[in-house]
Amino acid sequence: MNKAMHAETVYDGHLFKVQVLSWTDEQGRAIRREVVRHPGAVLVVPVLAGKSVIMIRNQRVAVDEQLWEFPAGKLEPNEQPHDAAMRELEEETGYRAAHMRKLGEFYTSPGFTNELMRVFVAEELTFAGQRLEAGEEIEVEIVDLENALAMVYDGRIRDGKTVAGLLMWQCQKEACPA
Amino acid sequence: MNKAMHAETVYDGHLFKVQVLSWTDEQGRAIRREVVRHPGAVLVVPVLAGKSVIMIRNQRVAVDEQLWEFPAGKLEPNEQPHDAAMRELEEETGYRAAHMRKLGEFYTSPGFTNELMRVFVAEELTFAGQRLEAGEEIEVEIVDLENALAMVYDGRIRDGKTVAGLLMWQCQKEACPA
Repeated sequence: MNKAMHAETVYDGHLFKVQVLSWTDEQGRAIRREVVRHPGAVLVVPVLAGKSVIMIRNQRVAVDEQLWEFPAGKLEPNEQPHDAAMRELEEETGYRAAHMRKLGEFYTSPGFTNELMRVFVAEELTFAGQRLEAGEEIEVEIVDLENALAMVYDGRIRDGKTVAGLLMWQCQKEACPA
Repeated sequence: MNKAMHAETVYDGHLFKVQVLSWTDEQGRAIRREVVRHPGAVLVVPVLAGKSVIMIRNQRVAVDEQLWEFPAGKLEPNEQPHDAAMRELEEETGYRAAHMRKLGEFYTSPGFTNELMRVFVAEELTFAGQRLEAGEEIEVEIVDLENALAMVYDGRIRDGKTVAGLLMWQCQKEACPA
């Protein structure tokens, strides 16, 4: 970017920082944007026998709802995304994956945050035991693929990364709908 | 939620607030979570003749990249989502829709924000002229559907709401891939 941009940190928290970016646009107007600086995250689509997925019902305090999601979590300092994907899968669902493959990545909400979500598909799963972190309330459910897609279309799945991840995986696996 | 939860506002900004939520879990542990309180947003999938979509190339300061996206934006105070969808479509792309239909909604990143994205499909479009807000740098492109899906799978589309919205719309329109 060819802008002379000023960044001021206005909140420095545990998970993220907030910065106010300011610059002058080509019309000479002073612009300010608030940005949440996030360490980035991983999302795992855990697949059983190619026809079911392991989902979690996650009590989310930010929205005060229990959401249907795929296991996910933020990167720890210096952690590689592949390792984070293995760790979050096992912590949140209790399953270990013999195969973990990256499918892609996306920004969750680039209008105000740089959070980058790396999407993995986990296969050849064996159960090892759930290990939740403090503050986590998570139930594990096995959902067949047809039912998971129906839950996207009827609105039961209300988590954007889960919608994107499910459809990215499914469209790669099968013929794309186009 | 049956928790005695305390919320402290630690940053009160223009677009969003940051709160620290704190409570004691069932094991007696003190938990703290930082949450970004967001006014909510809309996403529009603008469809031309059922076979192309109008996309934007949006210079995003939060990630310092130009991203391929669908038009979107936050709700103004007291604005209804349908009205916001009509407004953002016209401001960002210059197109007006005779039909605007809600497809669903999702949280963009419920681990740390309550931002709720309402997804609309816009049809019967006529060109009226782009009206960008200060600080916006947006180019409009018409992309045929097959190419848009290819851009999801090869990683050129890196915006999560656009991935979710495109696939939600496409799977509703055609047979779902399951």
